Amino acid sequence: MADVTTTRPETPPAARSRTGRRAGDSGTRDRILEAARGRFADHGFAGTTIRAVAADAGVDPALVHHFYGSKDDLFAAAVALPIDPDLLPAVVAGDPAKVGERFVRFYLGLWEDPTIGPTLLAVFRSAVSHDRAAALLREFVSARLLQRVAGELRRADGSPVDDAERRVALAASQLVGVGLVRYVVGVPQLRDADLERVVADVAPTVQRYLTGDLPA
Amino acid sequence: MADVTTTRPETPPAARSRTGRRAGDSGTRDRILEAARGRFADHGFAGTTIRAVAADAGVDPALVHHFYGSKDDLFAAAVALPIDPDLLPAVVAGDPAKVGERFVRFYLGLWEDPTIGPTLLAVFRSAVSHDRAAALLREFVSARLLQRVAGELRRADGSPVDDAERRVALAASQLVGVGLVRYVVGVPQLRDADLERVVADVAPTVQRYLTGDLPA
Repeated sequence: MADVTTTRPETPPAARSRTGRRAGDSGTRDRILEAARGRFADHGFAGTTIRAVAADAGVDPALVHHFYGSKDDLFAAAVALPIDPDLLPAVVAGDPAKVGERFVRFYLGLWEDPTIGPTLLAVFRSAVSHDRAAALLREFVSARLLQRVAGELRRADGSPVDDAERRVALAASQLVGVGLVRYVVGVPQLRDADLERVVADVAPTVQRYLTGDLPA
Repeated sequence: MADVTTTRPETPPAARSRTGRRAGDSGTRDRILEAARGRFADHGFAGTTIRAVAADAGVDPALVHHFYGSKDDLFAAAVALPIDPDLLPAVVAGDPAKVGERFVRFYLGLWEDPTIGPTLLAVFRSAVSHDRAAALLREFVSARLLQRVAGELRRADGSPVDDAERRVALAASQLVGVGLVRYVVGVPQLRDADLERVVADVAPTVQRYLTGDLPA
């Protein structure tokens, strides 16, 4: 276990514990992951198959499934984003008038979690520094997060919102920014503020983006 | 000129043209800048003197003034942020009801400018990747940008706003985020959107942060 932890410190413990692999697998796992990153960055999520990743890595497709599960799971591992997209519909579900608050609290909670925050920082750093990592994150956000959340968005009366993907992208811009200013750059006015005050300040922004009236 | 351009591509043309230096100065200039970065990162803006920077660089203080002007100018050069803080009061001045829109348009205009956008990206990249660059940017934002803007903020009736620095930090979180999502990660829903639509979507957020009612 120690070698894997050392070479891939960005992998959250939750992702490490469910694969049941033996010592000696890590070279193959890394090769598959590297092949997946190349495929997803160059061809996007839709244009990538497990079969192509397996061919690039020189392994049997069954081994990719064995190590990483579905294409969804492989993609999440390639991006190394410590967010399970399956959690997001639960954040969206519930009172539409409070979806902004739920989102901000969920997101800031990830940063505040000592097992997740450093991983989030690592993803930020690589997306900002490397074009391929930016391409992966872009694909992950636009093909997975945005669609997953956008499909669930509802107005207070239960009707679907218009322009759902644009709304989620705007919400993401505020969330990304508050994460960067509070946790990465550490501007004192936000870094030292009580978490609940930041939630209260920022939630109306996310609420307006997700369910409010936007310019036509 | 060519050697300087090659070694310091992040310096905007405007900053390069007013120093009147000769070929051969660039080693000294770089040493001064390096010393300034160390001082500002370790001691902050207030705790840094031109004299101390000169001592660290092994040059006469007059040479620091000759190359970089005031401490303000030296700080801006150290951060390499292509924004002249003196421009900001002009963005804040004018109809308080439109300050959000002016700010978003000014900021996105920097990203869209082909001579400034790449520099902004370089500043982002180093602040996210390097702790010292983050410390410099944090100090620049909190000691210069925030105070400069906060002191000018007015409500519609001309009265000063409460919590001005908290307001500007929140506005910065939205601006930083939209810059990152549109220009760095390039999420298509924001990257491909018409500039004026992004201004219209985001301006109300910045307006609320700067002059609206925030939770107590």
